[in-house]
Amino acid sequence: MPDVPSESYVIGVDFGTLSGRAVVVRVADGAELGSAVHEYPHAVLTDALPDGTPLGHDWALQVPGDYVEVLREAVPAAVRAAGVDPSLVVGIGTDFTACTMVPALADGTPLSEVEGLANRPHAYVKLWRHHAAQPHADRINQLAAERGEAWLPRYGGLISSEWEFAKALQLLEEDPELYERMDRWVEAADWIIWQLTGTYVRNACTAGYKGIRQDGHYPSPEFLAALNPAFATFVADKLDQPIGELGSAAGTLSAEAAAWTGLPEGIAVAVGNVDAHVTSAAAQALEPGQMVAIMGTSTCHVMNGAEVVEVPGMCGVVNGGIVAGLFGYEAGQSGVGDIFAHYLRYLAPEFTHEHLTELASRQRPGEHGLIALDWHSGNRSVLVDHELSGLLIGETLATRPEDVYRALIEATAFGTRTIVETFTAAGVPVSEFVAAGGLVKNSLLMQIYADVLRMPLSVIGSDQGPALGSAIHAAAAAGAYPDVRTAAAAMGRKETAVYKPDPEAAAVYDELFAEYTKLHDYFGRGGNKVMRTLRSIQRRVVAA
Amino acid sequence: MPDVPSESYVIGVDFGTLSGRAVVVRVADGAELGSAVHEYPHAVLTDALPDGTPLGHDWALQVPGDYVEVLREAVPAAVRAAGVDPSLVVGIGTDFTACTMVPALADGTPLSEVEGLANRPHAYVKLWRHHAAQPHADRINQLAAERGEAWLPRYGGLISSEWEFAKALQLLEEDPELYERMDRWVEAADWIIWQLTGTYVRNACTAGYKGIRQDGHYPSPEFLAALNPAFATFVADKLDQPIGELGSAAGTLSAEAAAWTGLPEGIAVAVGNVDAHVTSAAAQALEPGQMVAIMGTSTCHVMNGAEVVEVPGMCGVVNGGIVAGLFGYEAGQSGVGDIFAHYLRYLAPEFTHEHLTELASRQRPGEHGLIALDWHSGNRSVLVDHELSGLLIGETLATRPEDVYRALIEATAFGTRTIVETFTAAGVPVSEFVAAGGLVKNSLLMQIYADVLRMPLSVIGSDQGPALGSAIHAAAAAGAYPDVRTAAAAMGRKETAVYKPDPEAAAVYDELFAEYTKLHDYFGRGGNKVMRTLRSIQRRVVAA
Repeated sequence: MPDVPSESYVIGVDFGTLSGRAVVVRVADGAELGSAVHEYPHAVLTDALPDGTPLGHDWALQVPGDYVEVLREAVPAAVRAAGVDPSLVVGIGTDFTACTMVPALADGTPLSEVEGLANRPHAYVKLWRHHAAQPHADRINQLAAERGEAWLPRYGGLISSEWEFAKALQLLEEDPELYERMDRWVEAADWIIWQLTGTYVRNACTAGYKGIRQDGHYPSPEFLAALNPAFATFVADKLDQPIGELGSAAGTLSAEAAAWTGLPEGIAVAVGNVDAHVTSAAAQALEPGQMVAIMGTSTCHVMNGAEVVEVPGMCGVVNGGIVAGLFGYEAGQSGVGDIFAHYLRYLAPEFTHEHLTELASRQRPGEHGLIALDWHSGNRSVLVDHELSGLLIGETLATRPEDVYRALIEATAFGTRTIVETFTAAGVPVSEFVAAGGLVKNSLLMQIYADVLRMPLSVIGSDQGPALGSAIHAAAAAGAYPDVRTAAAAMGRKETAVYKPDPEAAAVYDELFAEYTKLHDYFGRGGNKVMRTLRSIQRRVVAA
Repeated sequence: MPDVPSESYVIGVDFGTLSGRAVVVRVADGAELGSAVHEYPHAVLTDALPDGTPLGHDWALQVPGDYVEVLREAVPAAVRAAGVDPSLVVGIGTDFTACTMVPALADGTPLSEVEGLANRPHAYVKLWRHHAAQPHADRINQLAAERGEAWLPRYGGLISSEWEFAKALQLLEEDPELYERMDRWVEAADWIIWQLTGTYVRNACTAGYKGIRQDGHYPSPEFLAALNPAFATFVADKLDQPIGELGSAAGTLSAEAAAWTGLPEGIAVAVGNVDAHVTSAAAQALEPGQMVAIMGTSTCHVMNGAEVVEVPGMCGVVNGGIVAGLFGYEAGQSGVGDIFAHYLRYLAPEFTHEHLTELASRQRPGEHGLIALDWHSGNRSVLVDHELSGLLIGETLATRPEDVYRALIEATAFGTRTIVETFTAAGVPVSEFVAAGGLVKNSLLMQIYADVLRMPLSVIGSDQGPALGSAIHAAAAAGAYPDVRTAAAAMGRKETAVYKPDPEAAAVYDELFAEYTKLHDYFGRGGNKVMRTLRSIQRRVVAA
């Protein structure tokens, strides 16, 4: 380990949707020695700005100062909790929600902090789940398809309203004056690094997945002009920026940031990163074929491949998008844990997740007689259709809540199998499935996934996968290891084959998965467009 | 009004699943003057006989003495409640659940009351919802289809496990000795009349619908022998009996029954009848094209026609099955109110029918974005398939309980429209829709049915339709009116066109009904057999 003392530490900071978590990690073995959480004072703004200015439907904003508070509060608290000498900290790494965008001046000042702009909604951070740019995304997708843009298949055929271009186009068209005053359109993942180092480096991950950067190029000025003439120079004027490899140093900790965090000035600060992708390092799953599923309210699947392949309906493939030197693939299920939570929401109070899991675990596969489609939040992969919705078949007067609960868990497992099989069929075989995220605690769910996938399930060995992954990137950036893969081998944690498929259960699930697939294709690939029809009737009726 | 004093009364007694209700009705105008309910002490035996002898899966028995208690308790109590002089009562009529079967000796003594037989399950009354004869019904249907039996299309192509032949075949094969000792296999609807009069008359309604009596004939000895040689002479030995027209007198009140009821010996006792069919008279809906829907936990549709037509998937068509001189058609939805009740069962206590109805009534059609199939108890008409099950499409994380509740109500309305359109398409047009039963109190549901059917909804003017209908039949039997139709015109009550279709709502429902029909045909007519597959997997897994 060149350039670092034998007893040294790194900090990983995970910026989530509602709070930031800092973890102190030992460089030598990845031991997590202490952590602290700081909640964002403004949480998510969905109804109004702090001054009361109302927001439109589907808006979701944040206040950038809240992120800095995490650095001031959670980082020193984690160091205190770990009981380590701050002078032994050699690097800091971060991960962020994405795509979360900060409109900023040339020096990084967020527009919401510029005098006179605090009452302008578009001056604030657009959180990943700001969905008000859907019409703009629709126009981008339609135009890209018409023009046969080469980048479109890299995103499974559709870009999301959550991403950089859709959100920027909304800003331009709804507040053109503010768009003029905005010098930089910055991923929060990079903005926080800018705060730590004083330097703006754009990370390869978000630039590729959310910023439509492929083979070194963004969408062309001609394409952007066709969307809106004023958008033609968007990339050159406000977006383009040198790219930093994941796990390299974006710079060193500035005096100001050292004062906030209590860490030594000049230590390495890793290039910004994204919560799901950084978890791959924590789960020691960076080699081609190792799919990491970060399973929570939704599930994100990330996996490396040696080559670039166009997988139908994936979220994206990005060179160096997970680790330098490999192609990072991403797919997702837009609803998983939130479907279970939604099902529970209106039940009598005695029906908790724990109780239903306990009741459901007494059943054998197929016993409840139900099958569901897990599209309550639409389908992110492989159909990429947010007009789809949930389906439940088989209910009788004997159906009990634990039956439906189990069927919903199984539906999400079938959704995962569909993604795994799509990758494998496209020539990017999945050789290991590694589970991470909050749902790994549910052993019934884990066993069902193993049975449905007919694969042993490995499980990440940390409850704080993203923060540990960020710390691993910090260690690599600090030069404690030659690269992220080496650092991950030493500092990551994974238990292999914790859940093994039961052949009898797997056989029943093969039968049920065949039914799932039939329904998936019938309702998802145009055999019956009832889900779209229901949405369109609903919109028409509500608007009337 | 020949032969009856101007101030005269009749009694109608409605024998339900759990209790019997007696109502005192004025002959002149049908005014309901008093009523009383008596609950059956043994209710329904599903787990064990009174002595503890265990029962098999899907059994449902009753104790015949409980029915006599209704005569002893509820009838005198109703007369007291009405404050009328019992000597002014001129007749009594009854209706019963069907097909509910009493195995009896030649004198009408139920086998369960014969010494030494009280511990034999097959000695008891088999209630309509005794479903343990399904294998026997399956054999009957298969053989009838193979042989092309002429009577099969009169029952929409399938007879039910609830009916006389299936239940008798089960008795024969499971307790042949008891079958030998059984002299008569009697509908409870007729057994109760036998108790009142001392005479066994078989009513035209149950003989036709439940007893497969068509054009004066039952299934042939050859057919029965092919099922089981010992079954060949079943009709001649145990079933055949002179038929009584509905609304005629089966006899007069015996001295013993007069003592039980406190009514005058010798008054007219009407031929037995069935709850749903007798309601047509109470609802003044006996003319061809007037469909009465008795809407409760399930819905039964009855309608007269001038000719016999084979309507696909109906329950049956019987000459004089509702009123003498016309062909009575019957169809049904096996789950209606019980689907709504099932949906509520596990919700938090604040979600009552009233509360959900109130919330759902604030919505416009199409607003919830859902569509359901109402097959939680299978489909009785027009698919006649009890392997079918429920379906719900369109759920999102924004779906609330009132949305699902409303979608389920709408699904049952779509199911009704499917039946109405099937009758009309077969050449038995529905010209008026008259609602009866417990669900008529739900004005949201009524309005939805009017909108979905695009027909004004008439509503029966009595809360006690079956008992009032029985009283009307008693008045006809007593000669107070020349026939049931005349009696119904004077004594029945109907409010015409209480709910009128709203054109705007109806237009949206036309769109949704088109989607319902597509799903109905896809899942119900073999396009996708997933519902059957789920049941078969379930049975296999549970049996393993």
